[in-house]
Amino acid sequence: MVESLPRVGVIGGGQLARMMQSSAIELGLDLRLLAEGADVSAAAVVVRTTVGDYRDEETVLAFARDCDVVTFDHEHVPPSILRRLEAEGVAVRPSPDALVHAQDKAIMRERLTALGIPCPAWRVVATPAELEAFGDEQGWPIIAKVSRGGYDGRGVWKVDAAAGCDEPFAALAEGAVVVAEEFVDFSRELSVLVVRSPSGQAASWPVSETVQTDGICVETVTPAPGLDPQIASDLQRMGLRLAVELDVTGVLAVELMERRTGGVVVNELAMRPHNTGHWSMDGAVSSQFENHLRAVADIPLGATTATAQVVVMHNVLGGQRDGFGDGVGHALANDPAVKLHWYGKSHAPGRKLGHVTCTGDDVEEVRARARRAAAWLRGEGE
Amino acid sequence: MVESLPRVGVIGGGQLARMMQSSAIELGLDLRLLAEGADVSAAAVVVRTTVGDYRDEETVLAFARDCDVVTFDHEHVPPSILRRLEAEGVAVRPSPDALVHAQDKAIMRERLTALGIPCPAWRVVATPAELEAFGDEQGWPIIAKVSRGGYDGRGVWKVDAAAGCDEPFAALAEGAVVVAEEFVDFSRELSVLVVRSPSGQAASWPVSETVQTDGICVETVTPAPGLDPQIASDLQRMGLRLAVELDVTGVLAVELMERRTGGVVVNELAMRPHNTGHWSMDGAVSSQFENHLRAVADIPLGATTATAQVVVMHNVLGGQRDGFGDGVGHALANDPAVKLHWYGKSHAPGRKLGHVTCTGDDVEEVRARARRAAAWLRGEGE
Repeated sequence: MVESLPRVGVIGGGQLARMMQSSAIELGLDLRLLAEGADVSAAAVVVRTTVGDYRDEETVLAFARDCDVVTFDHEHVPPSILRRLEAEGVAVRPSPDALVHAQDKAIMRERLTALGIPCPAWRVVATPAELEAFGDEQGWPIIAKVSRGGYDGRGVWKVDAAAGCDEPFAALAEGAVVVAEEFVDFSRELSVLVVRSPSGQAASWPVSETVQTDGICVETVTPAPGLDPQIASDLQRMGLRLAVELDVTGVLAVELMERRTGGVVVNELAMRPHNTGHWSMDGAVSSQFENHLRAVADIPLGATTATAQVVVMHNVLGGQRDGFGDGVGHALANDPAVKLHWYGKSHAPGRKLGHVTCTGDDVEEVRARARRAAAWLRGEGE
Repeated sequence: MVESLPRVGVIGGGQLARMMQSSAIELGLDLRLLAEGADVSAAAVVVRTTVGDYRDEETVLAFARDCDVVTFDHEHVPPSILRRLEAEGVAVRPSPDALVHAQDKAIMRERLTALGIPCPAWRVVATPAELEAFGDEQGWPIIAKVSRGGYDGRGVWKVDAAAGCDEPFAALAEGAVVVAEEFVDFSRELSVLVVRSPSGQAASWPVSETVQTDGICVETVTPAPGLDPQIASDLQRMGLRLAVELDVTGVLAVELMERRTGGVVVNELAMRPHNTGHWSMDGAVSSQFENHLRAVADIPLGATTATAQVVVMHNVLGGQRDGFGDGVGHALANDPAVKLHWYGKSHAPGRKLGHVTCTGDDVEEVRARARRAAAWLRGEGE
């Protein structure tokens, strides 16, 4: 039918896979999904959905046999399974050798440090005593992270004193270690997204300012207000260099912290469309979802230029209510230019249910509009 | 789950339904499809697809019972079936009483004339002799159209002389008549799209210039170059008035002809997203697909403002080749800002396979880019 476009398999059925499907439809790409359950966000919108466990090698292999290339909604697929896919001739993008830098924070820190990319002071610690020693050296508080398996603030602790040094070791998964990090006193968080194709074509979106609450991204402003153009350009170059050095295919998100004393350090890496890039759906020529698929399918990349002076994305997290009632109606009636993205998920406190984007010329005005819309959607109104 | 958003059923599985699904995904709307076959464009991207005949009352009724509201990819569902759906309590948007003006050109001409909306001279003719008499009065050539069942240039004849007056009557479907129309010597064709919700909220997109070849839309330029702002605004008001008078819910497309001697007349009406509105996906705050669904689902409408100074849409029709080869790669490598919409259809000469959109500041430059991309996609290159 559409004979020369590859069949793209996505492992993981969350909202990132769901939003990939909107882009896949327009690109004419045939998307297939390996979903955790029949009722997850993306399973409702992808016809060729297999329900199965991404940690089971045979399940993933059977799914991948009907795909030309496999990519991801999350970073949790074990590297051993991905290597097996590659051995069977399935293209895995990003490859397991690249992806491990988003899966394992110890490996990531080691590699970034070797590349001379600025990081917080860090050390792999094997015992609570070593963690305490790191705190005594650096000064308290410190940050402790499990190297594998954490996300959205889980698996990360702010440790204020020796008394808190046991907890990170309490439920350590197999193969995981604890990474101790300097507590960075940051003025704000930033994010730079780049995308790279198998042939090496690469592009960067403008740098965003991001706001996290309890480790969850709640808001982004693009371009990051007041960021020195030279620093912005340096960060884009750093993102592109990282994508080359780690041989990334698809989107690479680099989460950053701007030190209050100056300078920017890398906080985390993700190798998939990222919450801090959702703004690109309504504020860039090509969104992160479109370009991730273009990269993964080895189609030339689309322009990453912003289409508005200011783009604000605000997440809608589940509140204490069961449903959103008339929230959608109120939010959209209040502001016809709000762009709504609603993930079709059941409600739970703190769960990401959707996001809104607003564009305009003035940061404060656009931010206020996005926050107002998100409040309506949470059922809070004004 | 998303408890207060209605379940929207779309009858017809072409590219219009397919592109509705991209918007439905982002709005969190649960779309269901009644498709003509398992392999049609939209069936590949809508999970809840029923394959069945839209001319069969029981099939349509069974489909509609799982929907809160039903809308359309085309205008071919018999009004009697739609009335039955309404009687069963299913919301039909647009309603059969509105839709008939897009289904039957005789009823449309009668109503528009009664409303004082400018039309070409026209007359329902019962015999070839009456058609010939109309030609003798108006001067040849004339246009003959079957009142029902035609689309994309089918069911329309340019009749040059008495000898051609039999053909339009040759295969007249049940309930159809022949409408004779003045051959309008037009300088160009225009199109205005409006959208209206059940509560009466309505909005209009900017007027487009459209280029048709053999009755098929191949290109649009928005806003229509050089169109007097007063005329543009009059046409938008006319579209909005028509939507009110005909009680349209959803998108109403008004195809227009600009007489070489001045003045604009209505050519056709459509009550669904329309080829001349595809530009809005990449050139307006809210696309025709998004707003059609927002109207049909009774969610407040989105802004119809253009987001670029010039937006050119170019259709990609099937050529003489079997496939498009490397067309996608070439088109997108050549111009990273081209927006591709590919319908996932099998190839056939003249079939609408996809479209591209380009935006910019200069009409000729943007048009050249869109045409170049479409040529690559047809496999013709430069």
